[in-house]
Amino acid sequence: MDEIDRKILSVIQRNSDIELKKIGVISGLNSPSAVSRRIGYMKNAGIIENNISLIDYKKIGFSFYTITFVRAKYGKDYYKDLGKALMVLPGVISVDFLLGDIDFVLYTINRDAEEYQKLMDVLTTMDGIVRTDSHVILTNFSRDNYSNINL
Amino acid sequence: MDEIDRKILSVIQRNSDIELKKIGVISGLNSPSAVSRRIGYMKNAGIIENNISLIDYKKIGFSFYTITFVRAKYGKDYYKDLGKALMVLPGVISVDFLLGDIDFVLYTINRDAEEYQKLMDVLTTMDGIVRTDSHVILTNFSRDNYSNINL
Amino acid sequence: MDEIDRKILSVIQRNSDIELKKIGVISGLNSPSAVSRRIGYMKNAGIIENNISLIDYKKIGFSFYTITFVRAKYGKDYYKDLGKALMVLPGVISVDFLLGDIDFVLYTINRDAEEYQKLMDVLTTMDGIVRTDSHVILTNFSRDNYSNINL
Amino acid sequence: MDEIDRKILSVIQRNSDIELKKIGVISGLNSPSAVSRRIGYMKNAGIIENNISLIDYKKIGFSFYTITFVRAKYGKDYYKDLGKALMVLPGVISVDFLLGDIDFVLYTINRDAEEYQKLMDVLTTMDGIVRTDSHVILTNFSRDNYSNINL
Amino acid sequence: MDEIDRKILSVIQRNSDIELKKIGVISGLNSPSAVSRRIGYMKNAGIIENNISLIDYKKIGFSFYTITFVRAKYGKDYYKDLGKALMVLPGVISVDFLLGDIDFVLYTINRDAEEYQKLMDVLTTMDGIVRTDSHVILTNFSRDNYSNINL
Amino acid sequence: MDEIDRKILSVIQRNSDIELKKIGVISGLNSPSAVSRRIGYMKNAGIIENNISLIDYKKIGFSFYTITFVRAKYGKDYYKDLGKALMVLPGVISVDFLLGDIDFVLYTINRDAEEYQKLMDVLTTMDGIVRTDSHVILTNFSRDNYSNINL
Amino acid sequence: MDEIDRKILSVIQRNSDIELKKIGVISGLNSPSAVSRRIGYMKNAGIIENNISLIDYKKIGFSFYTITFVRAKYGKDYYKDLGKALMVLPGVISVDFLLGDIDFVLYTINRDAEEYQKLMDVLTTMDGIVRTDSHVILTNFSRDNYSNINL
Amino acid sequence: MDEIDRKILSVIQRNSDIELKKIGVISGLNSPSAVSRRIGYMKNAGIIENNISLIDYKKIGFSFYTITFVRAKYGKDYYKDLGKALMVLPGVISVDFLLGDIDFVLYTINRDAEEYQKLMDVLTTMDGIVRTDSHVILTNFSRDNYSNINL
Repeated sequence: MDEIDRKILSVIQRNSDIELKKIGVISGLNSPSAVSRRIGYMKNAGIIENNISLIDYKKIGFSFYTITFVRAKYGKDYYKDLGKALMVLPGVISVDFLLGDIDFVLYTINRDAEEYQKLMDVLTTMDGIVRTDSHVILTNFSRDNYSNINL
Repeated sequence: MDEIDRKILSVIQRNSDIELKKIGVISGLNSPSAVSRRIGYMKNAGIIENNISLIDYKKIGFSFYTITFVRAKYGKDYYKDLGKALMVLPGVISVDFLLGDIDFVLYTINRDAEEYQKLMDVLTTMDGIVRTDSHVILTNFSRDNYSNINL
Repeated sequence: MDEIDRKILSVIQRNSDIELKKIGVISGLNSPSAVSRRIGYMKNAGIIENNISLIDYKKIGFSFYTITFVRAKYGKDYYKDLGKALMVLPGVISVDFLLGDIDFVLYTINRDAEEYQKLMDVLTTMDGIVRTDSHVILTNFSRDNYSNINL
Repeated sequence: MDEIDRKILSVIQRNSDIELKKIGVISGLNSPSAVSRRIGYMKNAGIIENNISLIDYKKIGFSFYTITFVRAKYGKDYYKDLGKALMVLPGVISVDFLLGDIDFVLYTINRDAEEYQKLMDVLTTMDGIVRTDSHVILTNFSRDNYSNINL
Repeated sequence: MDEIDRKILSVIQRNSDIELKKIGVISGLNSPSAVSRRIGYMKNAGIIENNISLIDYKKIGFSFYTITFVRAKYGKDYYKDLGKALMVLPGVISVDFLLGDIDFVLYTINRDAEEYQKLMDVLTTMDGIVRTDSHVILTNFSRDNYSNINL
Repeated sequence: MDEIDRKILSVIQRNSDIELKKIGVISGLNSPSAVSRRIGYMKNAGIIENNISLIDYKKIGFSFYTITFVRAKYGKDYYKDLGKALMVLPGVISVDFLLGDIDFVLYTINRDAEEYQKLMDVLTTMDGIVRTDSHVILTNFSRDNYSNINL
Repeated sequence: MDEIDRKILSVIQRNSDIELKKIGVISGLNSPSAVSRRIGYMKNAGIIENNISLIDYKKIGFSFYTITFVRAKYGKDYYKDLGKALMVLPGVISVDFLLGDIDFVLYTINRDAEEYQKLMDVLTTMDGIVRTDSHVILTNFSRDNYSNINL
Repeated sequence: MDEIDRKILSVIQRNSDIELKKIGVISGLNSPSAVSRRIGYMKNAGIIENNISLIDYKKIGFSFYTITFVRAKYGKDYYKDLGKALMVLPGVISVDFLLGDIDFVLYTINRDAEEYQKLMDVLTTMDGIVRTDSHVILTNFSRDNYSNINL
């Protein structure tokens, strides 16, 4: 990882469709193939995971977003098993395990309160969950704004 | 938006590098150009926002992740101005405005505690912020796992 | 549902004794029978549920009002069964199931603290209730002020 | 107020459209005019306030219900002025002033989160409000179930 | 109970050693025996319970005062049995059962932290107690200041 | 202070009307005058403060008891001035200043919620009070049960 | 313990390497052997426990410090057994048992979040621990600054 | 820093009076002078800060220990200035600045509640302190138990 790699990542974390040539200009490489080689190397190293399309889910009928806190029951490997079970639930976009009095924070996206209620129905019967606390998101100012990371 | 559009989005929200032909097979379109036309239409409608590369920031030296709660001072347009000011701060990846006793939830990614402390130095002098409450993320089970959304 | 229906509802949600003729004038219908027809239609559709008399219970000896929070134990259908059990308890006027760290909010009206204590005696032995938290209402500024709804 | 009055109220708090004759049978009066006299007396005494139609607002597009807590700033007559200001806000159905660490509890009914946000915009700029805390109602088991009051 | 009784109580709740004659002057009775009769009557009615000497326990080696909150486990008669068990524990001066999220408030007086710890050792093994929360009293401004009651 | 003094206090803290002779028997003194001398000495030393009559205020119309928490504003001598101001308010029976997140605990006795509301009206306009939090006492198991103190 | 002993302790609690002669000058003793005698006496009495070297652990790779609250399950000797079990865990520097709603406060020093996670893995499976709540220390202004104690 | 240095630190963090020869045996150095050289090097590097005597303050009249939380007012460099001001207050043994809803944690040692109250009198008038929350330590299981650190 050198400064050139960082510049490449700075570009593609925001837009992965930019031409290799243009990325080269920004990062100081004079051939598209050099850019390509470095991207390939970073993919192999697992630094670049995937290219995805960002969707505006609000536009296709998803209007019920929440931050949901989950408190788990203590026990052997309590957070690992639960973390894995949570990360595959429909509507759960991210699962983070925290230090402090909250165990997990889920980011959820659902069509409406009813669909969310179905997710809650699953959560409240899952082994290892003691309490949940849901907060409805009124306004999503930015999500996945990775361009804020100064590489 | 019909079922075919939904199938296309289901694919590209996970992987935007898949060949148009393959997307066609999955979504039931028999020509890559038909896929391309629909993707173009959804881009114009703002449903597809952008293609980006997902980076594993842990692998390039970012090891201090937090969920930070922000409580704002009430006043005219209190949350709009503050929301906009928060979403451009370095290290702040997402900004959500919530119903309830927390106003904003920030997701932050920094190299280490010191770099995060610099972000805190900004937050604690920003007009309109009354309190913050930071929770260190120990394990990130999944983030941006949009494949959990049943389109 | 059109604008005329809305005007009719605006009137009768506040006062169901108003003459059909008068409602017609307000809503722009020129015959009482047209008003009547529309009311009948909305009754059949379940939009109008019932006519009731509002009683000032304070005047007939009910002086102990509370908002009581109930926290339930998680489990299959945990909130549905409990919600139904709560809604028939004497003195319980409304039962709402919430998102967040409170599960149910009850509005209770009793003659005095002793009568309320009897309700508490039931709540604290009900299966599925973990904790209650009662808040005495000192002043009831308005209740069932449906005229605040802009139809 | 005697037992007969109580029986009359028991009936009409649930259904004000019941025939006087039937009310007479239930309450032990043998003439509709005796029922009518007593109802008239209780109206004059302010015991019976009004007859209203109960509307199922969910059926006409109101799907965003909340319980909203309000904490007020202390000062002379702090709760009286604020209570009055709150009870006329659009979407606010009831306003209760409590003993304890919550000052006011509002019951709100709005079409959707956006309409509620407008109410919040008013609340957060009102003089005398320090904090609000909103809880979305997922299920309304019963509201205005006055038949639970044992008269 | 008339105004004269109230005046008598006003005096003796502060000082039960005042001469009957003097109490008569204050309460408007012209004979000590009339005062005596009324006091006797109020004793029989249980209005006057007892005469006691107030002791300044700080002066005789008791320097560890607390307010201790107790949260009880729900169940049949949960608060009655526990209340009775609490009111005989050494060092526990008063036991009150509250509405809200605290069940019992104890006022305790002990010689020092060690003696209090022994009380805690009992509390933490008592059936029906879920949690306690102790607050050390730094300054006791007034206790048993019944003269503040306007009879 | 010796063992005999302690025995005398043990008796009179519960009942100050017991004959000196009887107190002598209990405490091991063979003359009433010796008891009297020791009581006199302890009065001079401020150990015995006063004799009072305990009143059952519930029996004479006081039915609204609370524990009220008060949070004060920091500043020079903040708790001393406020403590003194609180201890003379009508209906306030005891005032204790605590370590921890509650500053003052008041024990209040009033006729009813309205009378208490008047006390609240004073508290909420007093300089130096930031918040109050009132808890209604449902059952008073024991108060001033000094016989629990093992002298 | 006299004033001279206090002066000796004042010196050596900050620096135990100071020459006896110098300590003598500060504490008013004119011979090093008199200082030595007094130190020996205080060691025998258990007043002086040990001499230790203070290490700057940050400099040798320990960068993850926390204050961790532990809530224990009630039961016979609940805090004694748990306290002892906690005080030998690797990374736990101090264990204090508190009055109030927190039971134990741990001060922990670990190399990084992963090492701390291993400590958490132990805590969350220990018998008798109900909840933990970890707070990361961003800046350690002073620790073991015993020179602040005015002997 | 190598394994030998670590072994030396492991010894002297517990006991700095151990003979150099013995330390040599434990750490695998065959001459006291080699131990001495390494200790000198680590002192110069600031790894070893100081040798101090641990005092059992309970034995010399200090019996009031607390953990005190401090919440600070936000502003430029808010925590740095306050942290420095706190670390020199008499009775304050450690000052740590935390992530989360508590700003500072103080460890205090005082003779008794009165002496602590004087410290509180300072804290409650200090610029920049919004609230404090004190927790009395009942039992100190271990403090400065650096031997728990696996070097």
